[in-house]
Amino acid sequence: MTLTRADSSGNADQELCRDEILTAHHGGKLNITPSVPLGGARDLSIAYSPGVAEVSRVIAADSKLTANYTWADRLVAVVSDGTAVLGLGDIGPRAALPVMEGKAALFKTFGGLNSIPLVLDTTDVDEIVQTLVRLRPSFGAVNLEDISAPRCFELERRLIEALDCPVMHDDQHGTAIVVLAALRGACAVQTRRLEPLKVVITGAGAAGVACAEILMAAGVADVTVLDSKGILVPGRAGMNPVKADLADRTNPRRLAGDVTEALAGADVFIGLSCATLPERLLATMAPEPMVFALSNPDPEVHPEVAARYAPIVATGRSDFPNQINNVLAFPGVFRGALDAGATRITERMKLAAADAIFAVASDDLAADRIVPSPFDPRVAATVASAVAQAAGE
Amino acid sequence: MTLTRADSSGNADQELCRDEILTAHHGGKLNITPSVPLGGARDLSIAYSPGVAEVSRVIAADSKLTANYTWADRLVAVVSDGTAVLGLGDIGPRAALPVMEGKAALFKTFGGLNSIPLVLDTTDVDEIVQTLVRLRPSFGAVNLEDISAPRCFELERRLIEALDCPVMHDDQHGTAIVVLAALRGACAVQTRRLEPLKVVITGAGAAGVACAEILMAAGVADVTVLDSKGILVPGRAGMNPVKADLADRTNPRRLAGDVTEALAGADVFIGLSCATLPERLLATMAPEPMVFALSNPDPEVHPEVAARYAPIVATGRSDFPNQINNVLAFPGVFRGALDAGATRITERMKLAAADAIFAVASDDLAADRIVPSPFDPRVAATVASAVAQAAGE
Repeated sequence: MTLTRADSSGNADQELCRDEILTAHHGGKLNITPSVPLGGARDLSIAYSPGVAEVSRVIAADSKLTANYTWADRLVAVVSDGTAVLGLGDIGPRAALPVMEGKAALFKTFGGLNSIPLVLDTTDVDEIVQTLVRLRPSFGAVNLEDISAPRCFELERRLIEALDCPVMHDDQHGTAIVVLAALRGACAVQTRRLEPLKVVITGAGAAGVACAEILMAAGVADVTVLDSKGILVPGRAGMNPVKADLADRTNPRRLAGDVTEALAGADVFIGLSCATLPERLLATMAPEPMVFALSNPDPEVHPEVAARYAPIVATGRSDFPNQINNVLAFPGVFRGALDAGATRITERMKLAAADAIFAVASDDLAADRIVPSPFDPRVAATVASAVAQAAGE
Repeated sequence: MTLTRADSSGNADQELCRDEILTAHHGGKLNITPSVPLGGARDLSIAYSPGVAEVSRVIAADSKLTANYTWADRLVAVVSDGTAVLGLGDIGPRAALPVMEGKAALFKTFGGLNSIPLVLDTTDVDEIVQTLVRLRPSFGAVNLEDISAPRCFELERRLIEALDCPVMHDDQHGTAIVVLAALRGACAVQTRRLEPLKVVITGAGAAGVACAEILMAAGVADVTVLDSKGILVPGRAGMNPVKADLADRTNPRRLAGDVTEALAGADVFIGLSCATLPERLLATMAPEPMVFALSNPDPEVHPEVAARYAPIVATGRSDFPNQINNVLAFPGVFRGALDAGATRITERMKLAAADAIFAVASDDLAADRIVPSPFDPRVAATVASAVAQAAGE
């Protein structure tokens, strides 16, 4: 799931050219600045030696005071091994770094949080966990990014166990939160309930698995997930442990086959697979279906084609209505978790984030406005507040 | 070695109070800000998806282009395990963090370099090396800080071997560079040559060892080093391998005993030990001696007492003349190394840095002005330029 696509329509009103992009990236996209004055000897005496020794003594006596006197407790480490970068795949940590710098820039712009990119020259889950455990005093939260499935599931689980701070793989949960918010928005437009919807998700990677999980947690009973080999169903060949587990807990009608079987009579299509969805299958869905064709840059079905069959269509692109954009979620989720002093990002906090995004959209809902604009200034604050409240419950 | 001490005299003209210091540290001392605009959808399309994919592709094809399109190649990681923090000793990584934030703030203010503090929850040299090797794509240089001796020597050596980027333990070499610069300044004031000086260094930790090394590299033939048990001399008991090696290469007159034997007839005293130097021993030094009493906050001998015997007296404090302050060296050293694309900080570069600091001071030298002010804006630029040139030679 990515953020926006510039095109000849929408807000990004000119085609991007390669030179313009590269020029904008010269020297990177982040700056560190002191937040204290350093213009004279007295300033130095306070911020560095000898004054800083007093702060070190205070923290040595009570390590919880790092929260008061350092930046670390509210600092998000944006961590990647570069194995699943955007749609580019396993291009390594160096090539992933511009994405992580961008993410850090968004954390500040949308969530008011300091954030540092840490890209790792190892793809071994044990080594990544070990490295972040050793670095633990340096940060206050971990945003995992662009890490390939199924390793990302084990890595996130083990980091949550090993670190006493919020850890979230955004490609999983950021996407899932915004998808749930959008589905609530779509239901409100159509005055339908969420729970009885028959939902089909193509893609059983990071985003697909997390979307299935959050929709079930939100009460959707009939979720069917497909990977490139077809519908996940117990006993099917070629499933990793994550898919096998998901097969057990989804697909209550025990459908087998491919997307043809899955989509017949379905209410919602959520595409997270980069595969193409043939137009003829849209005609087999239930009446008034919802189509979320979220692959970037090329949606599973063109939104104008989808609109012939579905009153509500969403994509991952900024140049069509209803952009499913992670930036609606992650800045507020981390901000809320850190504001609350939470050590975990729980399912309840993710559901609260989705509800908050929906709440911001709800005063101006329409078939082409099921989620707020990423630039709506209310979003991050509302999400943060809801997440912090959920953390306290 | 520390930076400044506020007191009732000098530039820092008011006593610091604890509350003022703690208040200044609220929330930490660093801020991350985006260096690209993020005000609209088109900005997002350039700095994040989809535009950033173009940058990732370019780097995936040629990893050297991280130097052009990310912040990492000019980013200094300020790394500590918290084992030798200021004069406070082994107080751990969390309590070390305010010092590292301060150092990062100085890197930006004086060297124009971005810098991130990384504090490690391990004191095992193997683990620290391994951690930084895994993080290698995230930064472009390593400033080691506040790491206890003798571990700091092995750690620095192994990191220099393992990482293809500049690595320097500032407590060693930053101090040594400024001491050499100050000694050149003192020699110029007294119209003496450096090479024939008999130099006594008390303290065989990080700073003492590095000072001995740089003075020998600069041509001083008679350097004698003491630890808490006395003069380092071949065959003495209780020396770790670093001290044994130093004993072999220093103390050409094979002195044995303590500071009494060492100081008799010596030209220069360099105190880096926190031990007290009895006034009566100053009277035994050679005529017109130089006394660098560098321990902080309490010099080995009060500078006013030392001045009764020595025409040139230096301390680590900002409230007396001739402050030996690392900030004269490290910002320019790293800036020069990175400007030159150097992968090592060589002995030649350190000597060039000392010469550059001396050169800045040399147009206004006096017995109480043997080094420039840390706020002299020429210092970092002159050091950087000299270091970059030495890197190219």
